[in-house]
Amino acid sequence: MVIKVAIAGPRGRMGREAVTTIINNTEFLLVAVLDSKKEEAFLGDHIPIFTSLNDLIYETEPDVLVDLTVPSAVYEHTMIALDNGVRPVIGTTGFTDLQLEDIRNKVAEKNVGCIIAPNFSVGAVLMMKFAQMAAKYLPQIEIIEMHHDQKVDAPSGTAIKTAQMINEVRSPAKQGHPSEEETIAGARGADISGMHIHSVRLPGLVAHQQVLLGGEGQLLTLRHDSFNRGSFMSGIELSVKEIMKRDTLIYGLEDIIL
Amino acid sequence: MVIKVAIAGPRGRMGREAVTTIINNTEFLLVAVLDSKKEEAFLGDHIPIFTSLNDLIYETEPDVLVDLTVPSAVYEHTMIALDNGVRPVIGTTGFTDLQLEDIRNKVAEKNVGCIIAPNFSVGAVLMMKFAQMAAKYLPQIEIIEMHHDQKVDAPSGTAIKTAQMINEVRSPAKQGHPSEEETIAGARGADISGMHIHSVRLPGLVAHQQVLLGGEGQLLTLRHDSFNRGSFMSGIELSVKEIMKRDTLIYGLEDIIL
Amino acid sequence: MVIKVAIAGPRGRMGREAVTTIINNTEFLLVAVLDSKKEEAFLGDHIPIFTSLNDLIYETEPDVLVDLTVPSAVYEHTMIALDNGVRPVIGTTGFTDLQLEDIRNKVAEKNVGCIIAPNFSVGAVLMMKFAQMAAKYLPQIEIIEMHHDQKVDAPSGTAIKTAQMINEVRSPAKQGHPSEEETIAGARGADISGMHIHSVRLPGLVAHQQVLLGGEGQLLTLRHDSFNRGSFMSGIELSVKEIMKRDTLIYGLEDIIL
Amino acid sequence: MVIKVAIAGPRGRMGREAVTTIINNTEFLLVAVLDSKKEEAFLGDHIPIFTSLNDLIYETEPDVLVDLTVPSAVYEHTMIALDNGVRPVIGTTGFTDLQLEDIRNKVAEKNVGCIIAPNFSVGAVLMMKFAQMAAKYLPQIEIIEMHHDQKVDAPSGTAIKTAQMINEVRSPAKQGHPSEEETIAGARGADISGMHIHSVRLPGLVAHQQVLLGGEGQLLTLRHDSFNRGSFMSGIELSVKEIMKRDTLIYGLEDIIL
Repeated sequence: MVIKVAIAGPRGRMGREAVTTIINNTEFLLVAVLDSKKEEAFLGDHIPIFTSLNDLIYETEPDVLVDLTVPSAVYEHTMIALDNGVRPVIGTTGFTDLQLEDIRNKVAEKNVGCIIAPNFSVGAVLMMKFAQMAAKYLPQIEIIEMHHDQKVDAPSGTAIKTAQMINEVRSPAKQGHPSEEETIAGARGADISGMHIHSVRLPGLVAHQQVLLGGEGQLLTLRHDSFNRGSFMSGIELSVKEIMKRDTLIYGLEDIIL
Repeated sequence: MVIKVAIAGPRGRMGREAVTTIINNTEFLLVAVLDSKKEEAFLGDHIPIFTSLNDLIYETEPDVLVDLTVPSAVYEHTMIALDNGVRPVIGTTGFTDLQLEDIRNKVAEKNVGCIIAPNFSVGAVLMMKFAQMAAKYLPQIEIIEMHHDQKVDAPSGTAIKTAQMINEVRSPAKQGHPSEEETIAGARGADISGMHIHSVRLPGLVAHQQVLLGGEGQLLTLRHDSFNRGSFMSGIELSVKEIMKRDTLIYGLEDIIL
Repeated sequence: MVIKVAIAGPRGRMGREAVTTIINNTEFLLVAVLDSKKEEAFLGDHIPIFTSLNDLIYETEPDVLVDLTVPSAVYEHTMIALDNGVRPVIGTTGFTDLQLEDIRNKVAEKNVGCIIAPNFSVGAVLMMKFAQMAAKYLPQIEIIEMHHDQKVDAPSGTAIKTAQMINEVRSPAKQGHPSEEETIAGARGADISGMHIHSVRLPGLVAHQQVLLGGEGQLLTLRHDSFNRGSFMSGIELSVKEIMKRDTLIYGLEDIIL
Repeated sequence: MVIKVAIAGPRGRMGREAVTTIINNTEFLLVAVLDSKKEEAFLGDHIPIFTSLNDLIYETEPDVLVDLTVPSAVYEHTMIALDNGVRPVIGTTGFTDLQLEDIRNKVAEKNVGCIIAPNFSVGAVLMMKFAQMAAKYLPQIEIIEMHHDQKVDAPSGTAIKTAQMINEVRSPAKQGHPSEEETIAGARGADISGMHIHSVRLPGLVAHQQVLLGGEGQLLTLRHDSFNRGSFMSGIELSVKEIMKRDTLIYGLEDIIL
């Protein structure tokens, strides 16, 4: 059975790719988009544009709402969708704790599944999960993340998330030589519970991370390269299909993968 | 409780490292070694050397026998050990189907666990398992294995094993452009069910493999570097500990990992 | 002194980036573009569009003509430019031997420099040059090139060019074990004078190459990743600056680099 | 003509490999070794052992003295060798400025070549030279060096040397985003004139370094892996051959390579 999908936020860069992705996938039918204005030029054709989510749901009856809008709009969309039995697939992360609690309660009340995914890249999520699984056997770990030089913060959110996931299974432990000495400050990187994280910033780079796990005589490297936004599309497709089988709140792609 | 370990084949290169590894691990006690002759110089001290496995077991009562001898000897060792309730941990792979059947029956009869591990490298086994798990989400895969130039066969056994494990979850599928053309024969590597394997041979290299899984806009790379024989020691330690909890025949480290 | 630049073929994907690059570089002044029709929307403003190269040269007097048009047009452009003392910087490679001979003669007659660059990526050219330089000391070499799976031919032109450049300084020599055996055909890749080339094709990949040079106990790896068309822009900028100092025909960026 | 070589310090780990290397190279003849005591077991045979360098030179007339002894001994050896017209090839780096000055003067006085090489690895020196050459075109650079976790200091000497060589051709420049912020201290690594150096320490690793040079849309990576001491042997062989053609003091393999 074909899954009927609506997309909120179809005009942004991510939205445009999502529109193309959903249209090209024969398991899905794009029934409508939700936008702040009716400006059809960018859409293939025959896809109705709504500015009211209630009208959209009433007229096109989608199974799933893929929401790629800004945090300020997404909370209300989510509550309306859940109230009407439409499953939300959400790529935004800006919910307050209170909003998250509301969504969790609404999901429980209505028995309608909902996915919130801070990172839609399946490959990145696999890298993080594998790092966590391997840490049990090779607990000495360093992370190198590499991004374009327009990125302001270091380390990246993905690197910190990876370290946190590893910390769930690994006891904090200082690594390196006990008398280790930095002759230039910072050489050994950032320290999270004894793990070291190194942030490389160069023009040309996009978004890359490697997790290095060392043991006697061996090295296991888990690397993910994200070359462009297209890397998020497979995660959106996977989420749309998975949420049809769920009736709980899923936070993070890692809970529907593996 | 300390596990009492005996080692068969303690004088080879792998055997020597295993002796050191078991001695240095406080969870283990090396109670004896089985050798073809009594020549003590290479052992620390106080470790008795036996040339008869029956005598060894009778006098030192090991829990586990780590067998690093040649295929011709290991079958008989294994049957004697199982008959006496000693758990074998075996690094040789040269069993005939008939011998394997005998061992399987003996394990069942005596309820004594036994591990046969063609590859004791925990990191390599993790790489293979992860490749199999990831193939469900990123089914387009190529393998690059790199070894020193004294290796005669290509592709490596590990690369073929990896492809076989992936094939258990992936349908055969031609990869690359439909009209792909090799202007020089061999450029696209060996083909196993549509997956491509590339074998690099250079002086200096030891044993390395990477599995590349590509998806739209992204690449997931799983890489294992084996720098020396030490990489097998953690697999031996893991096997000794795990076999104490098992009463079946385990073939391959992958069945006790993850 | 600011260099006055004209661009032929400003509407293609490469052309658009070149327009932006030249406009943003304060050492250059974009005086005009040559196009098949006058359709200004895509240009910032104030940049005149010509459909005749003679008119363009007569009215705007450029120092350099960056030509990114198709092979069928570029030969005539080049001859006109040289006749008028305008230095051509050409990214097309489709010249016949006869046309190349004509251009060479015209350059000599007019003493006006001209650059034909099959590859404008400075990083790729550096990788090839370094591979050639290092081959003198580490002559055992394998090349791994990796591209998106829409590429039809294997190996890539850059890989073949790299092998040819190495062959200028390296004697042909069979590599690998003397009794080397492929248990699956193609495993050892394509063979150029004993060097092995491996072509990986996966969705997600863009254009990547590594040259591996092995020696006893060591490996030197020269790797170039091209993530998008922007990688050609620095080569165009370099060529425009360099050609102002030259009065000969330069074939390949490698002759003005290092 | 075969070059007659003597080795000082033949019993250390590096010394033993050097003995084997020189014996196996048909362009060389190992005429004698200089040791602190006469203990022949470790040498093949027929290689005379001397405890006095003067006696060694008088009786065996070597062309070159490969000195792998400790800093305290090597200065005197070098002066004796030069006085007698024997060319020193030295792998120690512990000279005082005064001693270096003496050696320089003696080399000039006697017109006898001498090589002092802090790093005998040809591949590592090529990596450093290439990094310096490429920095002219791709001046945004980060260095990742990776070593076993028994290494005390970070960054490594090779990484610092690489940065210094790059600094000879690159103006200091802050890299990364102007408002870059470390949310965990050290994430961006050590800073040398705006270049960032990251030091990874893990068990299993040996000695590895990569220099990453980023430009718009591209990345050039120069990587050297040193897997074992064998990587120094080709540098020793190269030095022995080169010093026969020189009559000056060479400091660093980089001055006889490329």
